[in-house]
Order: sequence, then structure tokens, then C-alpha cells
Amino acid sequence: MTTTENTTARQVTVLGLGDMGSAIARTFVDRGYRTTVWNRTASKTAPLAEAGAIAASTAAEAVAASPLVVVCLLDDTAVDEVLASVGSAVAGKVLVNVTSGSAGQARAHERWARERGAEYIDGKIMGDPPYVGTPNIMFPFSGSRGAFDAHEPTLRELGTIAYHGEDAGLAAVEFMAQVAVAYELLIGYLHVLRLVQAEGVDVVEFAERVAGSVAAFPPLLTSMAKAVQSGEYAPDLGPLNVQAALMNDMIDHRESLGVEAVRMREVKDLMDRRIADGHGGQGFSSLFELLAGPSRT
Amino acid sequence: MTTTENTTARQVTVLGLGDMGSAIARTFVDRGYRTTVWNRTASKTAPLAEAGAIAASTAAEAVAASPLVVVCLLDDTAVDEVLASVGSAVAGKVLVNVTSGSAGQARAHERWARERGAEYIDGKIMGDPPYVGTPNIMFPFSGSRGAFDAHEPTLRELGTIAYHGEDAGLAAVEFMAQVAVAYELLIGYLHVLRLVQAEGVDVVEFAERVAGSVAAFPPLLTSMAKAVQSGEYAPDLGPLNVQAALMNDMIDHRESLGVEAVRMREVKDLMDRRIADGHGGQGFSSLFELLAGPSRT
Repeated sequence: MTTTENTTARQVTVLGLGDMGSAIARTFVDRGYRTTVWNRTASKTAPLAEAGAIAASTAAEAVAASPLVVVCLLDDTAVDEVLASVGSAVAGKVLVNVTSGSAGQARAHERWARERGAEYIDGKIMGDPPYVGTPNIMFPFSGSRGAFDAHEPTLRELGTIAYHGEDAGLAAVEFMAQVAVAYELLIGYLHVLRLVQAEGVDVVEFAERVAGSVAAFPPLLTSMAKAVQSGEYAPDLGPLNVQAALMNDMIDHRESLGVEAVRMREVKDLMDRRIADGHGGQGFSSLFELLAGPSRT
Repeated sequence: MTTTENTTARQVTVLGLGDMGSAIARTFVDRGYRTTVWNRTASKTAPLAEAGAIAASTAAEAVAASPLVVVCLLDDTAVDEVLASVGSAVAGKVLVNVTSGSAGQARAHERWARERGAEYIDGKIMGDPPYVGTPNIMFPFSGSRGAFDAHEPTLRELGTIAYHGEDAGLAAVEFMAQVAVAYELLIGYLHVLRLVQAEGVDVVEFAERVAGSVAAFPPLLTSMAKAVQSGEYAPDLGPLNVQAALMNDMIDHRESLGVEAVRMREVKDLMDRRIADGHGGQGFSSLFELLAGPSRT
């Protein structure tokens, strides 16, 4: 690598200086990058300019300043507006868009960038601004592999990074899937807290016991995914024939207390259908076969 | 403690020799307890008798043989039948019933035992027969504290034990609540596997990444329970105002792939209601306030 290339590699632009964009820009400044910043409300550039960043007066000027442009705006609508204002300045650049948005939106930005001679990487952020620049914040990325490989050292400054594939939508898929696992657990957990509170149990003590159980889940999650992948369903959590009786107890208990039982009934219905199909000796993971979704390939 | 008491303390009866009952009886035999066993189908006693257990010919005879009687049958109906056959032999005994069953059933057995001069402890089992006698199987107990304290060393032979209170139903509450947290997570997880598989993601690699995320949940679970207990809801996972927009992305993504979105819509509806009530700055745990259940005390 020549000195010129090395210098170019340490030049970065950040569009958008909300809490997250500011934390990203500040990390680059602190690590010695020549950092150009822009924000729709110009006053937000002041603290970064004081720290050594270059404040651009337009988004197009900011994009022109660096080979790598990190976009971190309020939402996807803001991304559309700002990119439209940038116009031809984007040619030859690598856009890394870490704004919240869907897989479909990421794919649309990727097409937009390609049509203008730019490369596109989509990123999502799993963590809060104070953790930017530490391993305790995760950035899934997807899109142009060449651009990712070229700028990986720069992106790595931001936290723990992972590349999920050429399809620009995959970072959003990973993000939404990980967040969905969390929400599925946590909304169920809140209903269970309602249940145990109704029975006079101390919810904080219960939480500490649950925490011990949850810590033991990871091997089960992996073995269930292997069962799904292979279609061979060992009786994890016990055979469905046995588990189904337990579900009745759980539904009865919830209903007797007026606590929501919709998801437990869904599980019981799926178990009953598997059993009726002659699969009562298989385990919980075999319920996957009955879940709605696109045709399996 | 006199020698006589010591000897009595090491005498135990086990009613029911399915896989779990046999593992329990075998553990007591192996630890040097004078172990009396009974099973409806007498042939199941043979391997235990060979190992040193005493095979009783009736349940009443088995109950009469020891101060502590562990009941481990197929289901609650079997418990009712066997206890009815035991009759007055139960007087002065401590019954420890670890058969699957509800909190209400446990409370009914407790009344039945008290009326006959016996003490009752209900237990539930979180783990599989091969783990009996190791720390890797959990037994929540509830019911007579005096009886539990007197027999704790014997019960401790079986695995990791915990006492949840005088209300005999509390072991079943703990069991069902812990299992419910697991099922809530796991059914949601299977739907998410459907989603990522539809997007061409390797489900086993995804599982390994989720496992890393799940391992970080315990502190969040405890802080959420503290928020529920205090009614003071910090913006865990970010303020609801911000989270609600993300839920729309997640629902849209699922619907575009035909993957079930019922629970995500429930979460979104709860968030919208909290925001409409002026609590958009609070966090996910504040959804607890809207969950159905008995009146809060």
C-alpha cells in the first residue's frame, strides 16, 4: 500500500449527526481519521469541528471530500432526501448506510448507488451510541464485498462487525431477526411476570432464577436450528406426546388467572397437529414444519 | 440427633417407577438409603430390588415402610387413584409429590393430606431422568416448611432444590412460569428461523449468533423485573416512540414473506397504546402495565 492510498483510506465522511452519527464521527476523529461531517441542522457540527472534524456546508460537498461515506440519518425517508440532494457527487464513492430501515429499502439504495457508479454497503446497529468504538456494539453489514473488504479496517473502528453477504438486504434481515428473537422472548416474559405476580411470587427473585435458565439456552438454540436444517427432529424438550399434556396445564393456569394464553394455545395447536400427523415422538423443533412462510426450497 | 432419628431419616419410599421414578429410587439406593419401592406394574421393581431396594406389594404397604414418601406417577389422575388406595397408612407421613400437575391440583393434594394427618410437599422436575442425582436437574418444592426442613438433606440427593413457600401450589407456578418463558422464546425463535431461512440465511450460523445475544439477556431480565416491581420504567431497549417505528418494519418484513406476525402486532399495539397514553418516553417493560391479568394488589 502506497502512502497516498494509506492516506485516502483514513478519510471518511459522516452524513447525519444525531446521537449515533455524532458518536460515529467522534470515534473516527479520535482515531485520527480525516473526518468530514454534515448535518441538516448545521449547529450540530460545532462540537465535532472543535474536536477536529471538517464541517461541510452541503451533503454533496461532504460526499465529495472522502472515498467512504457513512450515512446515519433519522429514517429511510431522510436517506432518500439527502441522497437525492447529493446527485452526481456520489460517483466512485462507497456509501455505508447505517440508518434504520428494511431489507427492501437497503436493496433499493443499492440499486440507486449502482446506477450512479457508487458502491453500497448497508449496515444496522445493535447497541447504543455510548458503545460506538467498543466491542460492545454490533454492526451487521451486507452489500458490495469488494467495498467491504477495502474498508473493513475503517468499519472495524466502530465496534464488532460482521459481513452477511452480497445481498444488501441481509444486514437488515439479521438485525430484524435478532431483534425479533429478543421481542418474542421479552413480551412472553412480561406475560409470565404478570402470571407469577398474580400468584404472589416476587418478580425480581423470579427474574434472577429465569436468568439462570436462559443462560443455559444457547446449546438448545443451536441444536434446534440443526434439526430444522436437517429435518430430523429428535425429542428435544421431550416428545410432543408428553409436552402436549403440559401445555393444557399451562393454558388452564393462565386462563384461571385471566393472563393471556394466545401463544400457549398456538403451541398446543401446533403440537396437536404434529401428533395427529404421526409425529408425536418428535420434539419441539418439529413444529417448524407447520409454520407459515414461503415455500421451502 | 440420635442414632434412631438418623436411621429413620435415611428411609424413603418411592411410589411409581417410570423413567423418572426409577431414577429417583436408584439414586436413593445408591446413596445408601433404605428404599422401599412400589409400582402398579410390579415387574418394574425387579431392577431396583436387584440393586438393593425393598419391593412392596401394595402402595399402602410401601407408604407404611418409611417416614418420607416420594410420589412420581404418570399424571394427576394416577396420583388420585394411588392415594385413595393408600388410605389411613398416610397418617404421620410426609408426602412429596413430584408428579406433573397444576398449582390447583397441588393445593387439593395438600388439603387431602392435612385431613389425614399427613404433611404435603409438592415438587416439580426441571430436567431429565439421567440427571437425577446431579446438580443439572432442578426441583422446585413448596408446601409444609417444617416437613421440607426436616427432609431437606434427603431431597437434596436428587439435584438442585429450592423451596418456594408454604402455598403448595408455588412449585407448580414456578415450573409453569419457567417453562412458559422457554416456550415463549422457542416458538418465537422457530418463527424467526422460518424468516431467516426464507431470506436464504444459514439457520445454524444464525443460531450461533443468536446464542451470543441470548447470553447477554440475564441482566436485562432482572432490570425489567425491577421496573415492573417499582412501576418506574426507564427507556430499556430505547424509548417506545423509537421502538414503535422499528416494529412496523418488522411486521412489514414478515408479512412480505408470509411469516406469522401476530406477536409482533401485539407488541406494536401495546406500544401504540402506551404512546397514546403519554408514556412514549418509557421503555419496553412499561408494556407490562397493559397486560391482561387479575387486578394488581
